[in-house]
Amino acid sequence: MPTTTTVGELLLSRLQDLGVRHIFGLPGDYNMEFLDQVEEFPGIAWIGSCNEVNAAYAADGYARMAGISAMVTTFGPGELSVVNGLAGAMAESVPIVSIVGGPTLEIMDRRAAMHHSLGDGDFDRWVRIAREVTVAQATLTPGNAEAEIDRVLDACWTQQRPVYLRLPGDVAQHSIPLPAGRFARPVPIGEPDQLDAFDTAAQRLLAGAVCPALLVGNLAIRYGLGADIAALLTDRHWPAATQGLGRGLLDETGPNFVGIYNGGDSVDAVRQVVEGADVLVCVGTKFFDWDGLFTADLDPSRIITIGRRASSVGGKVFEPVAPDAALARLHTIAPVRAVDWPTSPDPSRPEGARLDPASNAPITQARLWPAMAAMFAEGDIVVPETGTPSFGVASIRLPRNAVCVQAPLWGAIGYAIPAAFGAATASPERRVVLVTGDGSLQLTVQEISRMMATGQRPIIFVLNNAGYTVERAIDGPHQPYNDIDDWRYTELPAALSPDVAVDSHLVSTEGELARVLAGLGGVPDRPTIVEVIVDPQDLPAGMPQWGRETTAVDYQTTLNETPRLSWQGLPS
Amino acid sequence: MPTTTTVGELLLSRLQDLGVRHIFGLPGDYNMEFLDQVEEFPGIAWIGSCNEVNAAYAADGYARMAGISAMVTTFGPGELSVVNGLAGAMAESVPIVSIVGGPTLEIMDRRAAMHHSLGDGDFDRWVRIAREVTVAQATLTPGNAEAEIDRVLDACWTQQRPVYLRLPGDVAQHSIPLPAGRFARPVPIGEPDQLDAFDTAAQRLLAGAVCPALLVGNLAIRYGLGADIAALLTDRHWPAATQGLGRGLLDETGPNFVGIYNGGDSVDAVRQVVEGADVLVCVGTKFFDWDGLFTADLDPSRIITIGRRASSVGGKVFEPVAPDAALARLHTIAPVRAVDWPTSPDPSRPEGARLDPASNAPITQARLWPAMAAMFAEGDIVVPETGTPSFGVASIRLPRNAVCVQAPLWGAIGYAIPAAFGAATASPERRVVLVTGDGSLQLTVQEISRMMATGQRPIIFVLNNAGYTVERAIDGPHQPYNDIDDWRYTELPAALSPDVAVDSHLVSTEGELARVLAGLGGVPDRPTIVEVIVDPQDLPAGMPQWGRETTAVDYQTTLNETPRLSWQGLPS
Repeated sequence: MPTTTTVGELLLSRLQDLGVRHIFGLPGDYNMEFLDQVEEFPGIAWIGSCNEVNAAYAADGYARMAGISAMVTTFGPGELSVVNGLAGAMAESVPIVSIVGGPTLEIMDRRAAMHHSLGDGDFDRWVRIAREVTVAQATLTPGNAEAEIDRVLDACWTQQRPVYLRLPGDVAQHSIPLPAGRFARPVPIGEPDQLDAFDTAAQRLLAGAVCPALLVGNLAIRYGLGADIAALLTDRHWPAATQGLGRGLLDETGPNFVGIYNGGDSVDAVRQVVEGADVLVCVGTKFFDWDGLFTADLDPSRIITIGRRASSVGGKVFEPVAPDAALARLHTIAPVRAVDWPTSPDPSRPEGARLDPASNAPITQARLWPAMAAMFAEGDIVVPETGTPSFGVASIRLPRNAVCVQAPLWGAIGYAIPAAFGAATASPERRVVLVTGDGSLQLTVQEISRMMATGQRPIIFVLNNAGYTVERAIDGPHQPYNDIDDWRYTELPAALSPDVAVDSHLVSTEGELARVLAGLGGVPDRPTIVEVIVDPQDLPAGMPQWGRETTAVDYQTTLNETPRLSWQGLPS
Repeated sequence: MPTTTTVGELLLSRLQDLGVRHIFGLPGDYNMEFLDQVEEFPGIAWIGSCNEVNAAYAADGYARMAGISAMVTTFGPGELSVVNGLAGAMAESVPIVSIVGGPTLEIMDRRAAMHHSLGDGDFDRWVRIAREVTVAQATLTPGNAEAEIDRVLDACWTQQRPVYLRLPGDVAQHSIPLPAGRFARPVPIGEPDQLDAFDTAAQRLLAGAVCPALLVGNLAIRYGLGADIAALLTDRHWPAATQGLGRGLLDETGPNFVGIYNGGDSVDAVRQVVEGADVLVCVGTKFFDWDGLFTADLDPSRIITIGRRASSVGGKVFEPVAPDAALARLHTIAPVRAVDWPTSPDPSRPEGARLDPASNAPITQARLWPAMAAMFAEGDIVVPETGTPSFGVASIRLPRNAVCVQAPLWGAIGYAIPAAFGAATASPERRVVLVTGDGSLQLTVQEISRMMATGQRPIIFVLNNAGYTVERAIDGPHQPYNDIDDWRYTELPAALSPDVAVDSHLVSTEGELARVLAGLGGVPDRPTIVEVIVDPQDLPAGMPQWGRETTAVDYQTTLNETPRLSWQGLPS
């Protein structure tokens, strides 16, 4: 048995223990001796990215499928290009290990004027930035590597948020003693007394409840609570709604699903179930402005929350309580709901939604999304870009076991293409349907090349509405600043992946769209790009009102409604 | 006469006073009411970018031509995507005004959970990041706008570095009193006593000097000292060398130019002039590792420096002293150099450099760069990407009045395309020759679209060596992590600018290259893209040795030479 390892190999081994099988990023001087180790390491593959922004988004998409991800950039320009991506992962609770190849310990100690720095000898400047967008940071040395790697990875997994590891150039291949044992995914901690107290309080609140309901957020996905929640809903005959952030956890085709809850913007049936519940259980929820712009009408005294470290009953917090344990107790004590709930008609299947293959009418958002809903299939990874696609997907139901990769809280356009690449890397067995807009595509177009070159077969819809229509809904519907250059999206494969056979379609009528969609059943045998021409001023359902409200909130200080629920106070 | 204005219009008016005629960036909610003002403002044009990374580089390139630049992004994802670009501008001393549309003052005061934030109510998080990459920051309010705008813009101009202005959504169109007067570019400050003392000390050091010389860095360009330096060199018969950072200031075709000084990596004749000078005047220099990896052999007691706020003689610092005043005094007291200097042969014109139009030989770096040198013309904006292009351009001389837009200290690949776009926006009358590599191009390819759509006519060379050859020179020459996807670069216009006529050429032999170059005389009437196939392992002059040394510095802690000059101590 070997008794030594190297810092780089130890890090890779720990990442592997956590479930990392691919690492994203770019080479740069300072990180290449570590990349040499990545190339050598069995069971972990290097996945180069076209740029660091995209690497971060790819790592984000990967972590949403695989549970965690890692990326490597280099000191300075590389690491600063992922600050936005890490901030998004902080906001959305996505565990990413950001590894940065740094200058050698000696150079930093000498405060030498190095390239990729400001030349001022301050080598902690980028670490200070990392502190704002990660939950733990370390600069590795041979002496601290074992302890610091484990500390930082523990924080990443436990807090489900990104972390920062700087690996100086001379440290990666430095020999260190081989630690005994492997690294286990940390288990959420909880104290039995607190759990019991939570249980008692929850029983008291639930006693006599006749119309309880459940609301899920994205953290329920991160905690892996999908099956437990589904079991509770079925056993106890409870209805459940999802936050936009939590899409993909609930079976949206099942009898317990009522829809998306976003305060006053919800359809009536959903609002009635959630706001009319005598007890509302919020699992891993996170409320923010786009959940109906603070129009939720919830009574904190009737809410049970289940969060990462803390759960609460009617505002009283119990901590530490593990979320799976809290949910198990709830399942035990939850009463069977006594009354049925109003079902809302599946918005995916309105009357007359079927596209007419003979129609020469322009494609409208109103008719596009039901058609997309009919095309989505069980198990799909659906990646709707922030903007018209995210609104469109919010207006329909997802098929069973579909995953929805989106980042609505962070709301960075450009996320979808690299995130789809990352998600597909983690789950090559699933079909990926990426729906992006032309404006968003232009931010991160290059990662289409990586999809194609690595053999992925995504179906990519590009909604061409000649600019940033999500911004037009807020301000400047006809302003030039919302216009973009007119690309020919179906020509992208010829430039970016000339050696890959890609099905490309340009559709501008309902009939053309119908015919293309009809050919998209099952898992495609090659990548597909469908450019869909839509009117720049045509907005999907919900967006006009949202746009007006957002204008008011963004510019005119008309945030007059005081939420009854303290949005800050929810432990999650 | 109007007696009121708005915060946004005041900001635009101040920017205009400083010379800003174009503003780069992207729309986002929180910034669009300001963008509405930009669209309305006479004399300032909005130039949308495909993404924020590229906007920052474009603003950097613009500022290098126009003296200052401005860009607008939005709170959160937008502003965090320019952190890398701002850091580069900090490193290279480029004044950029980064304007960020933020949430309203009331929302920030309420600590509301907003999209584009972490949802934690901490609205100063991104400001703390900005503090690391800008020299002044402010969050504007109607009450502080006049004072804060002027304070921050003063810092930007005076320190020649980026600044950060957050403009809350409700503040941009808020009415405020119209300040009296316009905003003048701040004049460097100096105290007469300090200037006199500098003068006295410099006279003492220069007394009896027979072989003085001058070395220029990038700050000499920022301070606008080119003409004054040229006059001194001619009048006093002094030789001058340039740092890599300072390319474009000296007339490289003139008799006073000796070459690029980068320590032990310099050619002998340059080293002899610089290190053999009995007095060396360093104007706006900044030394860092890539100036020969700390091998410079300079005697601090024989150096006069001229910096932004301080000048020094033999290590004694005089402050505040304005750089133009210090240079004027030096010109007065400088002795005529008594001895001639060794001239190094123009490396741009080696024997037998002329390409053979009939040759089917592959294109080599050794033969490519002299051919490029012959193609460059007076007044060109030459934009060599960091990597093989920057080494290639370092091996040749630039024509008279050429500008070299590059960022060697920051060294971010991907910079060149957007920077060329920005530079061309500032100086539409000049020809732009952009030389990038395939790896670098893939980081920021989308800005080619903006060049074409705005009517620019750049000549774009894409050196296709199937990956990151600059990294191959350091580590992993055959490692997959240095490989990239094989694009067809000549097909990019068909996808990104289908409505613009572009001359595209793919050349892989010396003869093909010769024929294309022969057709590139004068100002082109349309954009040109030339994809040049070169061997992945073929390195331009200087790069093999640099690569070996960088490997040693980056990974193996062999920084054994203690520089005689304190690199940190040079005021600049």
